[in-house]
Amino acid sequence: MKKIIGVGLMGLGTVGLGVYRTLKEKTSVIEQKVGAKVEIKKILVRDAARSRGVELEEGILTTNVNEIVEKPEVDIVVEVMGGIQPALDYSLRALKNGKSLVTANKDMIAVHGRELFEAAGNKDIFFEASVAGGIPIIRPLKQCLAANRITQVIGIINGTTNYMLTRMTREGLGFADALEEAQTRGYAEADPSSDTEGYDAARKLAILTSVAFNSRIILNDVFVEGITRITAEDIAYADELNFTIKLLGIAKETEDGIEARVHPALLPKNHPLAAVNDVYNAVFVRGDAAGDVMFYGRGAGELPTASAVVADIMSAARNLIKNVSGIIGCTCFEEKTIKPMGDICTRYYIRLSVADRPGVLADIAHVFGYNEVSLASVIQKHTTGQLAEIVVVTHRVKEKNLQGALKTIKGLQSVDEVANVIRVEGEE
Amino acid sequence: MKKIIGVGLMGLGTVGLGVYRTLKEKTSVIEQKVGAKVEIKKILVRDAARSRGVELEEGILTTNVNEIVEKPEVDIVVEVMGGIQPALDYSLRALKNGKSLVTANKDMIAVHGRELFEAAGNKDIFFEASVAGGIPIIRPLKQCLAANRITQVIGIINGTTNYMLTRMTREGLGFADALEEAQTRGYAEADPSSDTEGYDAARKLAILTSVAFNSRIILNDVFVEGITRITAEDIAYADELNFTIKLLGIAKETEDGIEARVHPALLPKNHPLAAVNDVYNAVFVRGDAAGDVMFYGRGAGELPTASAVVADIMSAARNLIKNVSGIIGCTCFEEKTIKPMGDICTRYYIRLSVADRPGVLADIAHVFGYNEVSLASVIQKHTTGQLAEIVVVTHRVKEKNLQGALKTIKGLQSVDEVANVIRVEGEE
Repeated sequence: MKKIIGVGLMGLGTVGLGVYRTLKEKTSVIEQKVGAKVEIKKILVRDAARSRGVELEEGILTTNVNEIVEKPEVDIVVEVMGGIQPALDYSLRALKNGKSLVTANKDMIAVHGRELFEAAGNKDIFFEASVAGGIPIIRPLKQCLAANRITQVIGIINGTTNYMLTRMTREGLGFADALEEAQTRGYAEADPSSDTEGYDAARKLAILTSVAFNSRIILNDVFVEGITRITAEDIAYADELNFTIKLLGIAKETEDGIEARVHPALLPKNHPLAAVNDVYNAVFVRGDAAGDVMFYGRGAGELPTASAVVADIMSAARNLIKNVSGIIGCTCFEEKTIKPMGDICTRYYIRLSVADRPGVLADIAHVFGYNEVSLASVIQKHTTGQLAEIVVVTHRVKEKNLQGALKTIKGLQSVDEVANVIRVEGEE
Repeated sequence: MKKIIGVGLMGLGTVGLGVYRTLKEKTSVIEQKVGAKVEIKKILVRDAARSRGVELEEGILTTNVNEIVEKPEVDIVVEVMGGIQPALDYSLRALKNGKSLVTANKDMIAVHGRELFEAAGNKDIFFEASVAGGIPIIRPLKQCLAANRITQVIGIINGTTNYMLTRMTREGLGFADALEEAQTRGYAEADPSSDTEGYDAARKLAILTSVAFNSRIILNDVFVEGITRITAEDIAYADELNFTIKLLGIAKETEDGIEARVHPALLPKNHPLAAVNDVYNAVFVRGDAAGDVMFYGRGAGELPTASAVVADIMSAARNLIKNVSGIIGCTCFEEKTIKPMGDICTRYYIRLSVADRPGVLADIAHVFGYNEVSLASVIQKHTTGQLAEIVVVTHRVKEKNLQGALKTIKGLQSVDEVANVIRVEGEE
């Protein structure tokens, strides 16, 4: 039985430091729980001379990846570099050399998951930290909910945008002010587009969808729309209609295939996800046996992410000690079709700026009716000048019918602009 | 490599039927995920002749436990009989004969966990379904949050009382009406005391506490107080003070030992658990790395509970196929002390019925002050007749000081009664 499990850490940024600190501070309790010492043997960095505000053992840093992926004393390679390359090359080399792999890298898993699992053979790959930071979700989906046919997964899986939308909802801020505040607090980067345009959430959703439906979904399969067009007015109208606006990652298995889409959505205020505010994340799962289940917590940050990475290291270590691995490997047993976005069926909130004169609403309603879009509610408010604002919420309709109707409506002389179109989610 | 994993099912009540149906309906997907067929070989029942509304294979029922615990073709024994005996004897025999054990039995685990794990040696015991039905919580605590020092676990872990309190909160019902409604809907039994007096929650809390703090806590270690004294008035006052009343299972690790207590509590409305309504359960966990995490879902019912049992069966089966077990065994490595209830420190809500005349509040305030109980808020309302109602919320104080103050206050001539005392939880 192995007495020491060697870890090679690739990357010493925020998450890497969290992993380093956690493994150091908790050496004895980890040994107790795992049944062997877990020791960091080498840490791969780009610049070994840079100060990192933490005391490191002499000689533990290396700039040579061979010191990790080729070394026999490294049993588990932990990849927390982020980005696709060189993380992918290094991870593949580690797997080919028989190492177990733990990664927090959503970019890599959301695109190259298949390649990695093929290279792994029967070795362990764990990636709990790649989705929703400290919230247990990958292992619960793979193991605890394994007896369920899962029909939907809906997640608030980007903390930056959830913080911004929370501030916009509570304080009536506009998008720009909310972004500035998020940047001041360190929740948003200088270039916030990966968060605000939905790409960060889309990577996580690709991973969640693959695990939930046992079929590989990659980033390119996910429809993505960010929150940059959401205004304080939309949030106020939504509130009036008893909804809150959230950026959601939505995965559904339907008769016509899998839906995987990230976009802002009106969510009923009594939905469990509606109370998830600030930087918190949550993933709502509907299974045919378990019913509705939700996992809530911190989706990012040094220690929450390290919590997930170190738990994965401990699982990989336990398996190595027992001389077993790959008990839970790739779970994409099937190849399911992906539903084209035009075929999804949902309700829509539409805000229009129109000429303030009789007959306009009738014109618009006629176009909707012609395209088989039926309306559930209409709010009309006078604004300054010669324009009025109309907000409609439709009944369930196919995306392509709705888009057809909107195309015609945009061409109506009495319509100034279609100010916003937001899907509705989480009903029934 | 084994091609068939045999299951012996002990018990065919609500949960047993759910397990039977789930294993039957999902045979092929389970085989795909596990890597071998999982087959029910025998089902232990008390009366083999009784109709159960389900088509069973000829000869699968038995009234003889030896047909399960002694049979070589049974690899995993699934105990869903409930109650302590004979479930405990049968489970111990199964373990001693080298079977893996999956159980949904909170009564048995909350009292005899140690004995079972000792008998198991290196065999698997899984008990996810014993706490909070379909919500993954035991495995997440043991594995996903393994890198955390957990400081508190707070759960809404009894669906019956949560339903009743939700109805009392939303509709202003009294306890008796809420109970009647719960009974009509099948959420409460004819004798509801195990739910309303808190014992059901206490069993689950003993299990959660043991797993969270790595130290065995049994049912007798848990302080228990039910919801039978909660009135519509208490709920209305709590609401005025911006709290909601929930029956909580609370486990904390403090410098002076472990707290494990079940009682109704005032919870701030912005606490994640405050939005958990109706029969839903949720477990809130605070870890030093992950931060605040919450698990939400259905805590009972045929299929949610079967979801957890069958997932455990699948895990046990995977381990048997890989010829490994006990990777995650008993995690009670330590023996921590349990804090006496008198030493817990919290805030209190106290509702008093007093004589409606000058100076009474001063008398009461004097007694509180003398016992080092300081008051955070006071509400005084006139009631009919010669009595007034006073509600106070204290600052943090030791339970024994509070009880000392209350003893004196009950003796005051101007005090008609101490109508209720409810602890406050979930602040900070």
